[in-house]
Amino acid sequence: MKVGVLGGGQLGRMLALAGIPMGFGFRFLDPDGAAPAGHVGELHVGSYEDRAALSNFATGLDVATFEFENVPAKSVLALGGYVLVYPGLVALDQLQDRLSEKTLIRSLGIPTAEFVPLNSAGDLRSLTGLVGLPAVVKTRRFGYDGKDQWVVRSEEECEAIARHLPASPDTLILEGFVDFEREVSLIAARGRRGEMAFYPLAENLHLGGILRRSIAPAPGATAALQQTAERYARQIAEELEYVGVLAVELFERAGELLVNEVAPRVHNSGHWTIEGAETSQFENHLRAISGLPLGSTAARGVSAMWNVLGSPPAAESILEIPGAHLHLYGKAPRAGRKIGHVTVVSTDGSDLAERIERIAAAAPQT
Amino acid sequence: MKVGVLGGGQLGRMLALAGIPMGFGFRFLDPDGAAPAGHVGELHVGSYEDRAALSNFATGLDVATFEFENVPAKSVLALGGYVLVYPGLVALDQLQDRLSEKTLIRSLGIPTAEFVPLNSAGDLRSLTGLVGLPAVVKTRRFGYDGKDQWVVRSEEECEAIARHLPASPDTLILEGFVDFEREVSLIAARGRRGEMAFYPLAENLHLGGILRRSIAPAPGATAALQQTAERYARQIAEELEYVGVLAVELFERAGELLVNEVAPRVHNSGHWTIEGAETSQFENHLRAISGLPLGSTAARGVSAMWNVLGSPPAAESILEIPGAHLHLYGKAPRAGRKIGHVTVVSTDGSDLAERIERIAAAAPQT
Repeated sequence: MKVGVLGGGQLGRMLALAGIPMGFGFRFLDPDGAAPAGHVGELHVGSYEDRAALSNFATGLDVATFEFENVPAKSVLALGGYVLVYPGLVALDQLQDRLSEKTLIRSLGIPTAEFVPLNSAGDLRSLTGLVGLPAVVKTRRFGYDGKDQWVVRSEEECEAIARHLPASPDTLILEGFVDFEREVSLIAARGRRGEMAFYPLAENLHLGGILRRSIAPAPGATAALQQTAERYARQIAEELEYVGVLAVELFERAGELLVNEVAPRVHNSGHWTIEGAETSQFENHLRAISGLPLGSTAARGVSAMWNVLGSPPAAESILEIPGAHLHLYGKAPRAGRKIGHVTVVSTDGSDLAERIERIAAAAPQT
Repeated sequence: MKVGVLGGGQLGRMLALAGIPMGFGFRFLDPDGAAPAGHVGELHVGSYEDRAALSNFATGLDVATFEFENVPAKSVLALGGYVLVYPGLVALDQLQDRLSEKTLIRSLGIPTAEFVPLNSAGDLRSLTGLVGLPAVVKTRRFGYDGKDQWVVRSEEECEAIARHLPASPDTLILEGFVDFEREVSLIAARGRRGEMAFYPLAENLHLGGILRRSIAPAPGATAALQQTAERYARQIAEELEYVGVLAVELFERAGELLVNEVAPRVHNSGHWTIEGAETSQFENHLRAISGLPLGSTAARGVSAMWNVLGSPPAAESILEIPGAHLHLYGKAPRAGRKIGHVTVVSTDGSDLAERIERIAAAAPQT
């Protein structure tokens, strides 16, 4: 089985590390010749928009996928002329635009934040009335890790913020701010025959728009909460005829769940599954897109995942922590950059907080 | 951390798959340009005896190791002039010759089979008196998977067998046959500062000299049995100032353990640790040789490992079995050749026998 991946970042790299043991081979297309996945597969350096590069990339592949949702839909359309691509174009197209994503979620009757397209910066003040204050202006496309977001706290702020917004029309969305108690995410997998598997909910902590740590299963999450999240994920996946792993980010508020974002790919909040679940999200994505049976999503104990930002910690300081596993992506250090993560698995979770503290001290997120 | 591995077989490949997530890079030296580890690291194709190839191989490495005990001691000696090599030359030299291996074991007061060097085929009949009948003639070096072994059941057979033995002197050993109840193995790791970690004993089944399946922890193994095995492994490792993972194969007979073989490397009977233990034998070997703290060797549930011999099974037939993970090494199919393995992890072991049956049916060992 030869798998092609658009994008050669850490997600592509971890896909390959999950697939090589099963005898899969990997090829990546990435404009960056230093892409982290280049160590574990064939790296084609080229533009996603270059038709000849795509054709060459596709030659001999059994199936293709992508590791980031900002891959141009046109590239996936073109690639689909040469090889099966999962998740498909419909899912990518709907989910890479926050407006169509939110519209889809609402159309399925799934709770989400209030939202309205912001077609002109000048409409900001009048539209806050529709979604309430505080509100958040986001770019409809290409946002990640909290970039390109502006929080509007009062009507008085509207004019000042409007001056900082991009001028081009149809690029923004205004969302009501959800005063959530915590963020959780559900990683789901859907196979080619429509069968689905769901991991336990993870509890996520973001700071400055960047995921800092996840704990899974999410402490205190009830069976009812898990079932609700699974129902939403199933509705979305079935509507999109989705194949592969998909991540649903949710807000929990007063025992209710609101879907915030849906990512058509393996996800940072699912990295704990490498050591913490019977089958990792990466292996299940590969099983799904290649038409193989999905593996068990059961958790092994309780896991915490801690992102390594900026520069790598001393390996010794991490590996001396019981149950800790270090992942480094082979990326150059840079302030705030995700260059790795640490997973720690605890049998019953009782010693997890103390272990996270030790990891946090060894790998400060600066 | 750049690690060099003499040998690019499946063991080297699995070392790399354990080390790449930690940010380690790998280089392999192997005479075979199609060596399975070539997919996961830089492959130098060359002879182990070629000094220039060894020097070139060693350039820029932080540490080196080997994945098979039949690597020429001279190569490790030469390599040691350029880079740290673990396990060291003393361990390799003692353990790659069955006579010095058994002599070491006996000198430590550890039970083992009766043995005597067989310096001339003509001495066979007289020497069987020393070790008893049945007895086994083995080559002192380069035997693996039960190759180059001859069982002597009666004095009458001696002459016929003697005619089939290699003529060169000092190449054979005669051992008493141990009428064991079962075979078990202990995988141990010893770090650079002498710290040790031990996996639970695995129960192994060999047929025709080839390992067929392992179960770990070994069913019914008492704490006393585990402690005895650990004591033997510690004695051997300390005597050899060993660094890395070492595998001790033992016979269990009437509640007692006899050491049969010691392999200075990661071992087939430890493959279950990839999914079945908190830290795999491959990760612990890398931690040990690079001076990092050893990881937990605790088992997750009960695991079975089934070797895939000959040709690969249909992936679907394996992956539909709950808890099963497929490993294929990227080797060309050939009757009897180890080309992969399947691990199945069970929470409490109650469903393990049934799952092994299903794996055996899907991947018959022909």
